[in-house]
Amino acid sequence: MRVGIGILGFGTVGSALLHKLVDENTSISTKTGLEIEVVKVAVRDINKERSVELAAGVLTDDPMQVVDNPAVQLVVEIMGGEDPAGDLVAAALRAGKPVVTANKALIAARGKELIGIAEKAGVPLLFEAAVAGGIPIIRPLSETLAGEQIDRILGIVNGTTNYILTRMTEEGAEYKAALAEAQELGYAEADPTADVSGADAAAKAAILASLAFGTWVASDRVYTEGIDRLDATDVRIAGELGYVIKLLAVAENTPDGISVRVHPTFVPGDHPLAVIRGATNAVFVEGPSFHELLFAGPGAGGAPTATAVLGDVVDAARELLAGAEVAPPIRFQPGRILDFDAVATTWYLRLEVIDRPGVLAQVAGVFGDNDVSIKSVWQEGEDDGATLLLVTHTNREGRQRDSVEALRSLDVVQDVAAVIRVEGAGPTPNL
Amino acid sequence: MRVGIGILGFGTVGSALLHKLVDENTSISTKTGLEIEVVKVAVRDINKERSVELAAGVLTDDPMQVVDNPAVQLVVEIMGGEDPAGDLVAAALRAGKPVVTANKALIAARGKELIGIAEKAGVPLLFEAAVAGGIPIIRPLSETLAGEQIDRILGIVNGTTNYILTRMTEEGAEYKAALAEAQELGYAEADPTADVSGADAAAKAAILASLAFGTWVASDRVYTEGIDRLDATDVRIAGELGYVIKLLAVAENTPDGISVRVHPTFVPGDHPLAVIRGATNAVFVEGPSFHELLFAGPGAGGAPTATAVLGDVVDAARELLAGAEVAPPIRFQPGRILDFDAVATTWYLRLEVIDRPGVLAQVAGVFGDNDVSIKSVWQEGEDDGATLLLVTHTNREGRQRDSVEALRSLDVVQDVAAVIRVEGAGPTPNL
Repeated sequence: MRVGIGILGFGTVGSALLHKLVDENTSISTKTGLEIEVVKVAVRDINKERSVELAAGVLTDDPMQVVDNPAVQLVVEIMGGEDPAGDLVAAALRAGKPVVTANKALIAARGKELIGIAEKAGVPLLFEAAVAGGIPIIRPLSETLAGEQIDRILGIVNGTTNYILTRMTEEGAEYKAALAEAQELGYAEADPTADVSGADAAAKAAILASLAFGTWVASDRVYTEGIDRLDATDVRIAGELGYVIKLLAVAENTPDGISVRVHPTFVPGDHPLAVIRGATNAVFVEGPSFHELLFAGPGAGGAPTATAVLGDVVDAARELLAGAEVAPPIRFQPGRILDFDAVATTWYLRLEVIDRPGVLAQVAGVFGDNDVSIKSVWQEGEDDGATLLLVTHTNREGRQRDSVEALRSLDVVQDVAAVIRVEGAGPTPNL
Repeated sequence: MRVGIGILGFGTVGSALLHKLVDENTSISTKTGLEIEVVKVAVRDINKERSVELAAGVLTDDPMQVVDNPAVQLVVEIMGGEDPAGDLVAAALRAGKPVVTANKALIAARGKELIGIAEKAGVPLLFEAAVAGGIPIIRPLSETLAGEQIDRILGIVNGTTNYILTRMTEEGAEYKAALAEAQELGYAEADPTADVSGADAAAKAAILASLAFGTWVASDRVYTEGIDRLDATDVRIAGELGYVIKLLAVAENTPDGISVRVHPTFVPGDHPLAVIRGATNAVFVEGPSFHELLFAGPGAGGAPTATAVLGDVVDAARELLAGAEVAPPIRFQPGRILDFDAVATTWYLRLEVIDRPGVLAQVAGVFGDNDVSIKSVWQEGEDDGATLLLVTHTNREGRQRDSVEALRSLDVVQDVAAVIRVEGAGPTPNL
């Protein structure tokens, strides 16, 4: 069975995808029975040299020639960015063409609208590649677990930051040195902001939460904190306590509401996510029926992302050729999204204090005043009394934040040097 | 949208599934838009007390009343065993009813035939629950990776044996004690043969290989060795060398052909599968595009298996309601399945020998005569010269087996006490 596809974009993912579709087409058709023919590919510069040879007339610099072409039955959007990708995807869907996209920014920003358009048009919009690149996570969430209660998702969904954190953990490197190394090796971009600020992870967290909980979560509802202010000291202390610091995407569905957040996190050393090293991504899903599931693999890169895109292309092509409107995989319901202040979290804090009697009482008093209970407090180092480490019990985020504000105004507190959230029971130091 | 389903079997998985479908039906319909109505359930004893209350007339002791019932649009087979399950599944498919099954023995034995019947009838036959219980692995293999080259699958696909091996590794327990404990805790059955012999894992390995490589592999083509003769000594030695012994399902697709095998294996301590503890299952997939993917979760149990069944039910119901014949997910091609003798493997051997000069030369001579190259050989213990440990380079399995036969006939070799295959480069002891 033959299907004509059009592709928007010819970057890293596009090259890998076209390599598969053109150079390795025989093995695809042997395995799937589909003859996938690349009809049109939209690029910015039609004269640039390409790694895959295409027939004359396939390349165009007008994306509407892809979307409108009657021989294009299915559109793959891998140009990235919200604009003009979003309008092109919408136009393709409205024209009754299934769309496969790897564009996480677009889905996070306009996913609800686009899924609605797809549903109305009766064609699939698939985006397996938009979250955690090569890891098949979207399909398990939206199909295998479609009827299930999902309580929580913990994810390492940004390879750049996980690479940097791995270097900081294993080599004791400072953040800046680890970032520079990641840039040198191509794991981080020259402007690493989107990765290290947590924004990329937040967009993915929003998509995962939306699919898992069936309530659309816009990415601006995700509390986001990056790794750019993380200190090697805290990475070392985490290790001494049996923890590893990871940039986690945390999505929770509680009776009170949904919370989605991205921040550096103390993860217990024996948690499956603690051993996810380098640029690898992983998603850990918890629910009452299936308990715990872990999906791990390459989070980015041309070839792994192209694998996910190709899986969606095969899927969409089969549906298209079946000539049927299959029910939308997820129905979004209204739901309550919690303000981050109302979310229960556990905190690790590092305070630089003046070393004199009564300091601990003053610090403890501040937490007591804000109704925040402390699990443990200890001095870092043996001789140096100027650093206090604290771990709270699980308290409302807002009250803990109020405590920190109050701490900053104490004369004896020179600096609230670090605040890092903790997953798991929270460390208890061997005092 | 309403869909009527019939269920064959009401054991552990059936109870968990019916609990979801009856007691939690509202959340399923909210999330998926499907009204799943349980029309008929076939059981052996209609008078037995059940944990889920069903309407009058739903229970029957005649399975054909499920398959033939015109209100049953979709059949779930969770009775287990090849017979009569196989004929019932075939009858349902021929009647144009999609079938969801959790029956790995049936799929391994008659999967090719049943998939053919399903294809002819134009309805899906889904079996996500048949391999690795609650882990979504079938759908990623047959859909997301449908167009991809898969080189190798390594799997821990039997929870009972992994529980036993974990106890042996972490407590230094002997096999028999660990098995008794597993039986006490319900991880192993009173007759544990199907698990400890590797037969259960072999059936799953055959299914995984068939889907991954697109060539049907019957389970009697899987070389199978269990853990029932594993000695605590070798578990300890593996640990000292930085390895863990796991019962691995190994499926490889090489230019020479396909090989599928199940046997105890030395796995490097830093391999993702090395940290899979207790009854957890995991599947590790390797290919040139996506590199390495890991899927881990509960391998068995009523609720996790019912999760996988429910995911398939939702999927099949959507296709059914779309009224379309979707192309079969996998097209099986003829392929060459290698004899195990021709497969390249690495061996660890433990020999009990007479402690006198010249023994090593004789042993080495035997391997040389069979064209088997040795990577390292060393004496176990400092004072006791009677135990020789060897690790081979990668050689053809058949030649290594010939070497062992020849070793047994040497006067100086009292016993070939252990032969265990190695994944990874193979340990090099610090001599």
